[in-house]
Amino acid sequence: MADPTAYEIRKGAYYDSVVLMQLQRALTGLPGVRDAGVVMATPANLELLAQNDLLPDRIDPAPEDLLIVVRADSRSPADAALRQVDELLARRRTVPAGHYRPRSLKAAAEMLAQAEWILISVPGRYAGAVAREALDLGRNVFLYSDNVPVEQEVELKQYAAAKGLLLMGPDCGTAIVNGVGFGFANRVRRGSIGLVGASGTGIQAIAARIHQRGAGLSHALGTGGRDLSSAVGGISALHCLELLASDPDTKVIILVSKPPDPQVATAVLQRAWSAGKPVVVDFIGHPAPAQRLGDVHFANSLSATADLAVELLEQPVGPRTDVRAPKRPNHRSCLRGLFSGGTIAQEALRGLQALLYPVFSNFAEPHLADPLVSHGHTLLDLGGDEFTVGRLHPMLDNDLRIRRLRREAADPQVALILLDLVLGVGAHPDPAAELAPAIEQALAAGEIELGVILIGTDEDPQDTDLQKSRLIEAGAQVFEDTGQAVSFAAARLVEGRRREADTGFLSRPVAAINVGLETFYDSLVGQGAQAIQVEWKPPAGGDERLQAILQRMKG
Amino acid sequence: MADPTAYEIRKGAYYDSVVLMQLQRALTGLPGVRDAGVVMATPANLELLAQNDLLPDRIDPAPEDLLIVVRADSRSPADAALRQVDELLARRRTVPAGHYRPRSLKAAAEMLAQAEWILISVPGRYAGAVAREALDLGRNVFLYSDNVPVEQEVELKQYAAAKGLLLMGPDCGTAIVNGVGFGFANRVRRGSIGLVGASGTGIQAIAARIHQRGAGLSHALGTGGRDLSSAVGGISALHCLELLASDPDTKVIILVSKPPDPQVATAVLQRAWSAGKPVVVDFIGHPAPAQRLGDVHFANSLSATADLAVELLEQPVGPRTDVRAPKRPNHRSCLRGLFSGGTIAQEALRGLQALLYPVFSNFAEPHLADPLVSHGHTLLDLGGDEFTVGRLHPMLDNDLRIRRLRREAADPQVALILLDLVLGVGAHPDPAAELAPAIEQALAAGEIELGVILIGTDEDPQDTDLQKSRLIEAGAQVFEDTGQAVSFAAARLVEGRRREADTGFLSRPVAAINVGLETFYDSLVGQGAQAIQVEWKPPAGGDERLQAILQRMKG
Repeated sequence: MADPTAYEIRKGAYYDSVVLMQLQRALTGLPGVRDAGVVMATPANLELLAQNDLLPDRIDPAPEDLLIVVRADSRSPADAALRQVDELLARRRTVPAGHYRPRSLKAAAEMLAQAEWILISVPGRYAGAVAREALDLGRNVFLYSDNVPVEQEVELKQYAAAKGLLLMGPDCGTAIVNGVGFGFANRVRRGSIGLVGASGTGIQAIAARIHQRGAGLSHALGTGGRDLSSAVGGISALHCLELLASDPDTKVIILVSKPPDPQVATAVLQRAWSAGKPVVVDFIGHPAPAQRLGDVHFANSLSATADLAVELLEQPVGPRTDVRAPKRPNHRSCLRGLFSGGTIAQEALRGLQALLYPVFSNFAEPHLADPLVSHGHTLLDLGGDEFTVGRLHPMLDNDLRIRRLRREAADPQVALILLDLVLGVGAHPDPAAELAPAIEQALAAGEIELGVILIGTDEDPQDTDLQKSRLIEAGAQVFEDTGQAVSFAAARLVEGRRREADTGFLSRPVAAINVGLETFYDSLVGQGAQAIQVEWKPPAGGDERLQAILQRMKG
Repeated sequence: MADPTAYEIRKGAYYDSVVLMQLQRALTGLPGVRDAGVVMATPANLELLAQNDLLPDRIDPAPEDLLIVVRADSRSPADAALRQVDELLARRRTVPAGHYRPRSLKAAAEMLAQAEWILISVPGRYAGAVAREALDLGRNVFLYSDNVPVEQEVELKQYAAAKGLLLMGPDCGTAIVNGVGFGFANRVRRGSIGLVGASGTGIQAIAARIHQRGAGLSHALGTGGRDLSSAVGGISALHCLELLASDPDTKVIILVSKPPDPQVATAVLQRAWSAGKPVVVDFIGHPAPAQRLGDVHFANSLSATADLAVELLEQPVGPRTDVRAPKRPNHRSCLRGLFSGGTIAQEALRGLQALLYPVFSNFAEPHLADPLVSHGHTLLDLGGDEFTVGRLHPMLDNDLRIRRLRREAADPQVALILLDLVLGVGAHPDPAAELAPAIEQALAAGEIELGVILIGTDEDPQDTDLQKSRLIEAGAQVFEDTGQAVSFAAARLVEGRRREADTGFLSRPVAAINVGLETFYDSLVGQGAQAIQVEWKPPAGGDERLQAILQRMKG
């Protein structure tokens, strides 16, 4: 370091991060001061100081210590700046005149009894305990704080669920409830699109776009960025989907997230599937399972998601696509797909895995242990290399497929069989002549259903219409693309029950208690919501040693 | 096995798989016969026989042996059936009267000198050598055969590329060249959509759908299912894209594949990006990087891909979106993104990684070794947990971002910087007041460019228009969504050169030599193409021991 610097370490001291930012600015503005750093002394923050020529030599603060560094033209202004720290801090800690601020959540909850929400933005290491206290007070929680351990997140979400409360977060940057933005939120028109997001700026970008397109939002609910991980299991996303599905003000639902765990994605998409309203999904960085499954649509960008939701809002609502078939015997719950086309099989697998997990196959994870023996839901590409040594492709020779069809139909677990049939030159001249009798036989007992994806044109030599009518006469459902067939299968196999949730708390005027960043309190008030700010301090003023002693005394 | 069976093993015998299928059918039709199996004795085929009560006890054939099994009412019809095998085989091997069939590719190539194509569907273990011979004869190859080792595929594709020939396959099920279907192909209208597919039934489903929608195809070119793997590196897909980009009859290109290797996907998408025509991509099971990047669109199903291509065909062709900026100094080739929004950063990363690989970040693979030090193309989420301990989120405090912006602008490798700016309640009241001067300073030397994704509405408290105009005055390009910003960055950083390819061979009338499945010869003739069938037999009649001896004698 060329310039003279002065520094101070405050052991285990807690300050609001707004206070720290303002202290750093105030120090930087003092005469002779070139730069200043006011940070919690984490390794990353120390490296940042070093990059800015602000790291004093030979210091070794702990991560929970506050480090204040001033670099100045000369020694004397640097020292002078440091001497003003206490005064600068005191200046910032004055509560506006005429405002009494409760020092505990409990006191705040008594003062503003109608507050159904508590917004929490204290540092991550304190946030879990504060959120727990908020839930104990019977309030819904918006938990902005990050750096909350995932185990604590799971515990809090389970606790909230048990109490019938909504917990958004941790690391939930934004929400809009009944027109009032929590945390960071764009000002948007009220309307009929409801948003669920494991993604702060995802929600914001979509919300802003919907507004720009002339539509509006019912509510935007955040879940925190880790909600769709395998550890958390989508607890909040499932809850929020249930709320928006039940909410009479919401006509179209949007679901946005960073890449979800595949099994969690299935659970969440099953809930979306049975929402009874159009749902647009953007799982950023996750393969879209289809363009559309039933009323669930998939988009590939935040903008496209918003645009599609607005379009769907303008479309007349059709009949429910997830009407279930007459109930099959309970033991019949499995799907089997026997495909001649590898790509059609792939496309079907992607769609089905989104709603039925696991689906085993001979071409993707999870693999069948033995391609000759189906297990649970199974899709087979019968044109796979293992089946075609010395044998014609199934588009030319139906023998292998018909034998397998008989086996699957004889399996008492099987509820539904999917086939593809790809016509055209080079292929079998009349496949339905062989397949239709086998299909008829498979369906004879009346306990299973069978769908065929038929790919052909009116110029194909097999006569596509004739092939189709033979399949239909044999009892098959015939589809013109994979998406339709997958939706057909899902309608029969996905558990479609939907619980009606009480959404009253979403539609009552927002009253909220804010703990942490005052900006968020100001913003609530600015939006006309009733709000109260808690004058929060961590236990023992943030002194970790003292906290540990207190904890031991309690125990 | 309850019923009496008889079997025969023919050591290392080669028969066309049509012949085997027909033999099995003929045997099954004989009096007293209940079922028959005629297979190459691979482990999978033996298991299949076992499932059908057709596997004799205590036999141990080799995989290259032919196994013939007959199950009958009693011993005597079973034995009688087996005795007819030779006669049944002989009946099938008669060449139609009046047709002379050459026994070698070379002879066929002399007979049909104008044949620019050779279709190969011999068993996989012979296919590589036949394809090599076809390329040596200077012909383009459609290689239907599967079970070809991937090392051989790479060798063949490199050899074809060196000779300027097109090799489709191995495991290429379909193609349509100048209106003539190769292998399995739907009969579709001629038109202006060109298809490249590492996917047989993917191409067929899309082609059929395009026809049903009233549009048509220029050409459909197959690459084989493994072409976009890291082993093969997309050699054929890159070649086919180049051909369709150069082809005057193709107005819109479709690219369909099962999940590609990420680096290969980047290479292929770069080629698509610079095609100078709209391209619709469906990478099944692979995350779409965006809804649209420049003229490259992404769809989530085969049907949606076809529909979008038809729509694009009907749209007026706009100006090229990939016009490049004035040339920067050569050392300036890196992108740096400094984001406050995690999801916007994610979306930008997905889009950029599709065209620029690798892009390092602090939130996805490949990770930066140290988030405080950028490397190559780098995107940072400055709201990440490691940056926010005791520090306000970058949507509230611009200090961290401005310091980093200065560092990036000072890096002589940097050509372009991307930022996001998310407005709304709760956020910084006037971020442009702080960011704009920093941007102006970063751009002062005139060697870099800077883009900002601005998320805000006309009701946001910061005055979105004012924020925007300040950023523009400071020299920034302002975008309303991530896709636009990514396209802007890619236009400046992706190598956009496109080689004009000679496409004459695609538009000349098809004449072809067929080696293998006669069905494909029949189909060529049926479509009015000139064709010749080679009366092919493997070396030494398929006897592997004899082949090995012959090979040693040659060596």
